[in-house]
Amino acid sequence: MANSKFEYVKQFEQPDQLLPNTWVVVRIDGRGFTKFSTKYGFEKPNDKRALDLMNAAARAVMSELPDITIAYGVSDEYSFVFQKSCTLFERRASKLVSTIVSTFTAYYVHLWTSYFTDIPLSPPLPSFDGRAVCYPSIQNLRDYMSWRQVDCHINNLYNTTFWALIQLGGMDATEAEQSLKGTFSADKNEILFSKFHINYNNEPEIFKKGSVIFRDYELVEPGTHNVVEEVEKMAEPIQQSKSQAEKDKKKRAKAPIVIEHLDIIKDDFWDRRPWLLSNKPGQIPKET
Amino acid sequence: MANSKFEYVKQFEQPDQLLPNTWVVVRIDGRGFTKFSTKYGFEKPNDKRALDLMNAAARAVMSELPDITIAYGVSDEYSFVFQKSCTLFERRASKLVSTIVSTFTAYYVHLWTSYFTDIPLSPPLPSFDGRAVCYPSIQNLRDYMSWRQVDCHINNLYNTTFWALIQLGGMDATEAEQSLKGTFSADKNEILFSKFHINYNNEPEIFKKGSVIFRDYELVEPGTHNVVEEVEKMAEPIQQSKSQAEKDKKKRAKAPIVIEHLDIIKDDFWDRRPWLLSNKPGQIPKET
Amino acid sequence: MANSKFEYVKQFEQPDQLLPNTWVVVRIDGRGFTKFSTKYGFEKPNDKRALDLMNAAARAVMSELPDITIAYGVSDEYSFVFQKSCTLFERRASKLVSTIVSTFTAYYVHLWTSYFTDIPLSPPLPSFDGRAVCYPSIQNLRDYMSWRQVDCHINNLYNTTFWALIQLGGMDATEAEQSLKGTFSADKNEILFSKFHINYNNEPEIFKKGSVIFRDYELVEPGTHNVVEEVEKMAEPIQQSKSQAEKDKKKRAKAPIVIEHLDIIKDDFWDRRPWLLSNKPGQIPKET
Amino acid sequence: MANSKFEYVKQFEQPDQLLPNTWVVVRIDGRGFTKFSTKYGFEKPNDKRALDLMNAAARAVMSELPDITIAYGVSDEYSFVFQKSCTLFERRASKLVSTIVSTFTAYYVHLWTSYFTDIPLSPPLPSFDGRAVCYPSIQNLRDYMSWRQVDCHINNLYNTTFWALIQLGGMDATEAEQSLKGTFSADKNEILFSKFHINYNNEPEIFKKGSVIFRDYELVEPGTHNVVEEVEKMAEPIQQSKSQAEKDKKKRAKAPIVIEHLDIIKDDFWDRRPWLLSNKPGQIPKET
Repeated sequence: MANSKFEYVKQFEQPDQLLPNTWVVVRIDGRGFTKFSTKYGFEKPNDKRALDLMNAAARAVMSELPDITIAYGVSDEYSFVFQKSCTLFERRASKLVSTIVSTFTAYYVHLWTSYFTDIPLSPPLPSFDGRAVCYPSIQNLRDYMSWRQVDCHINNLYNTTFWALIQLGGMDATEAEQSLKGTFSADKNEILFSKFHINYNNEPEIFKKGSVIFRDYELVEPGTHNVVEEVEKMAEPIQQSKSQAEKDKKKRAKAPIVIEHLDIIKDDFWDRRPWLLSNKPGQIPKET
Repeated sequence: MANSKFEYVKQFEQPDQLLPNTWVVVRIDGRGFTKFSTKYGFEKPNDKRALDLMNAAARAVMSELPDITIAYGVSDEYSFVFQKSCTLFERRASKLVSTIVSTFTAYYVHLWTSYFTDIPLSPPLPSFDGRAVCYPSIQNLRDYMSWRQVDCHINNLYNTTFWALIQLGGMDATEAEQSLKGTFSADKNEILFSKFHINYNNEPEIFKKGSVIFRDYELVEPGTHNVVEEVEKMAEPIQQSKSQAEKDKKKRAKAPIVIEHLDIIKDDFWDRRPWLLSNKPGQIPKET
Repeated sequence: MANSKFEYVKQFEQPDQLLPNTWVVVRIDGRGFTKFSTKYGFEKPNDKRALDLMNAAARAVMSELPDITIAYGVSDEYSFVFQKSCTLFERRASKLVSTIVSTFTAYYVHLWTSYFTDIPLSPPLPSFDGRAVCYPSIQNLRDYMSWRQVDCHINNLYNTTFWALIQLGGMDATEAEQSLKGTFSADKNEILFSKFHINYNNEPEIFKKGSVIFRDYELVEPGTHNVVEEVEKMAEPIQQSKSQAEKDKKKRAKAPIVIEHLDIIKDDFWDRRPWLLSNKPGQIPKET
Repeated sequence: MANSKFEYVKQFEQPDQLLPNTWVVVRIDGRGFTKFSTKYGFEKPNDKRALDLMNAAARAVMSELPDITIAYGVSDEYSFVFQKSCTLFERRASKLVSTIVSTFTAYYVHLWTSYFTDIPLSPPLPSFDGRAVCYPSIQNLRDYMSWRQVDCHINNLYNTTFWALIQLGGMDATEAEQSLKGTFSADKNEILFSKFHINYNNEPEIFKKGSVIFRDYELVEPGTHNVVEEVEKMAEPIQQSKSQAEKDKKKRAKAPIVIEHLDIIKDDFWDRRPWLLSNKPGQIPKET
């Protein structure tokens, strides 16, 4: 019984390769997490366990997919970045997105009990959706990352104030919302400080900055590398010899994957970690 | 701190809506399942626990996404079908694919211990990738389904014979492969019967036919509905009044989701279940 | 001097094949034709020479691209339809669109002096843009065609009344526009008749119905063919033997390409010309 | 008679915007120009009239679409480049391609008699197809342009030698082809010189280099601009104030559009004409 009669249906599969030589960002988002966070009693405005679980799942994704150079997470979303020369899965969008979403979900569910030790998961289970976006230049990519971190800041300042008004100020949700209508950042800082003696600057970095995950090497002196120029000259999808690729792979496998809560908007973060943009592994720190 | 300076990066998101009025099939596949099945000692040629787990995860997907009208699974793959008038997530490919992949993965990991009671999951965890394909006509859709079921048959007959030669005939993998080179279906049936007294027809239906999942209503007499004509006349993405949609939704929620191992190539399966193509719920069977 | 160093740039060409088994409509539109028609003194509301030139160019397109089964034109736009099994240029959108636009433009410019005998073309020259759209079912395709013909009717009734108010009624454009604000079809018919003794039904068919171009064969009795069912069963892009294709090609070459001004909304037009949907040539009329 | 019943068909139009912040190249090619050039007796290996006509049509395209910054033509093909910040037609691929193809064709047909004074066009008329490709970086774009010019060189050296063997050496096509099999550039130069006393270097530049069309301003000293860095920092599709855009538009309108036959592979061409990449008009030369 040959299958040839029906095989024509494969012709309907349409190609979805992403434009070469562009930075690929896959962003995933929790589906219905407002409801989900209520069901499991997430602390407000931030639940440290939930963020740590997100970070653990993201770190596992980076570990299983070494082509990812950096990831940034906030709340129930995570962005994963592939360097522009990456050719994983021939850059097919659905393959890249579905693999990341599936791997992330697997770890989120699997690791749940390590972070929420007292409440087992029950249906409907947590799930995530995702999409891929191409950014042609380093500036575009960095602006994307900045956009997410600014969003983190705006939302966290709002939520911190909103929940202070409720938890410490005795307001209900409607009153808190009303109080914050039309306020600027400075106003919210002021409310926090004057009413509740909270200095927003002293809030945990993970809440204020979100989480950035990357392979860690020795920091370099700013100004000693011109990564931008070097990277923009890279024209072709793959430019490496196989032996170089093999060496890089080993170096990457050795590098620790770290989770930090740093400012990724300013140049300093990128200047001192040229490997994030160049895709060339840095120096493994000597053990001491 | 406004976010407007960076928000331009949203312009790089490119639309990926699937063509209206076409059947959408999302097929997911296990990533690296050869290695995975070895790690967890899956029985060969078929592991009943593994198939039951796949089916349980797929049933959960159908339960959480009522827009799916039918699903078909074999081995480590599953195909989910959305009726051509479906407008879920505005038919955005990445959203449809990632949601299905994520939900499936979540249940697969979560339900693992119910089916593999003695071996807990450990990293690297199982994951799946997926893609969406549009089929313009009922004939195309049915040919797609037939393609998968014929594939199931071809692979299962081969694997059953291959593993019989090894497990019962004492061959190693190379010898078994060599024995089967160039053989036709009839030859494999003959090998099974003459050497091992196995009548392939008596093998379990779940292995021979795969699994089909759908909402179950009362079967209709073949020939009383002309679904094809009716469905092809449906031209617009949405044609229902809201109240009708609401009624249908309730009916669907009441219908049991069943897992069967039937021939989905022949007309009979479709003729007796017009709701699978028409997207109009059938009659809920009376309790007896 | 090998070219291999630069050839990698070909990788950036992204595929744009249109979904198989769908009707492809390429619609072209005149660019800036309001200005253009003023420059060459087109008669208002309709310029017969301009429409005849559009039709002549469209007929030439159909003659050079026999895969087109029907075309419909109104004002400065034309729609060309490829049967759903068509595989011309591997269904690449840019190739289909650019070829039609280019061929149409070539004939429009070349034939200009045959229709506008007294005014030669001068820069800026007339040009057209185009796009391709896929329609999965016959109903969708016919609704597309109906949409264009209804548009023709609506615009022509409006324009006929508008210009009557100006040319015969002595109004200026603003007054005419004001008079027609909020009027229905019946009102416009009434204005034409009561004020100017114009019976809209007696207006030339080419103005009221637009122009439809197709290969002509002997009409069939309505009800003797069930083209819809037959066509919907066609599942694969190509189903013909080469010899059959060759025969069909010859028959098509013999069939006269006609320009008519018929109602293409009602079933009758399609029922009597089954070849338009089936892509099977009809009977060449016997000469008498 | 409202058109709403059919208007749903507009939903089937799928978006085709090109990725922002990438260089857009629209390349058009003559359809069936081997046959066409025979029909009109084009001189071999190059017909100066035919090339001049191509250049005249391309110049007209650039004049009507000021968003095009540079164009490069060889034989029956032409490439038109839009700067990466260009937002013409919202970057819709089909609109960009069809407009260029149509405008080019219109001028090609219209200007035919100015270049081929003795042979009027007759059906089938010349036509062109086209496609759009995105290049993310300056390096990619320049490599694309280099690819076309190297192709021009390779083909022209081959054709010059091939036709010398036929026209001067008395060979037939098969013999000439056979003679050139496996030869390198140096061999062909040698054949031309030793057999026919032709120094390939002295061939006309238009044949050897192809034609490049651009707006001309005062050349700048190489090294005084770092256009690459400046351009790569441009992140957003539009960055100009309206008044600046207006000024630039006027400057562009004043700049002469020139047709040259220069080396566009080396840096010098681009270094001295920074406006080609930066999209900022240069200095209009003072009249003397």
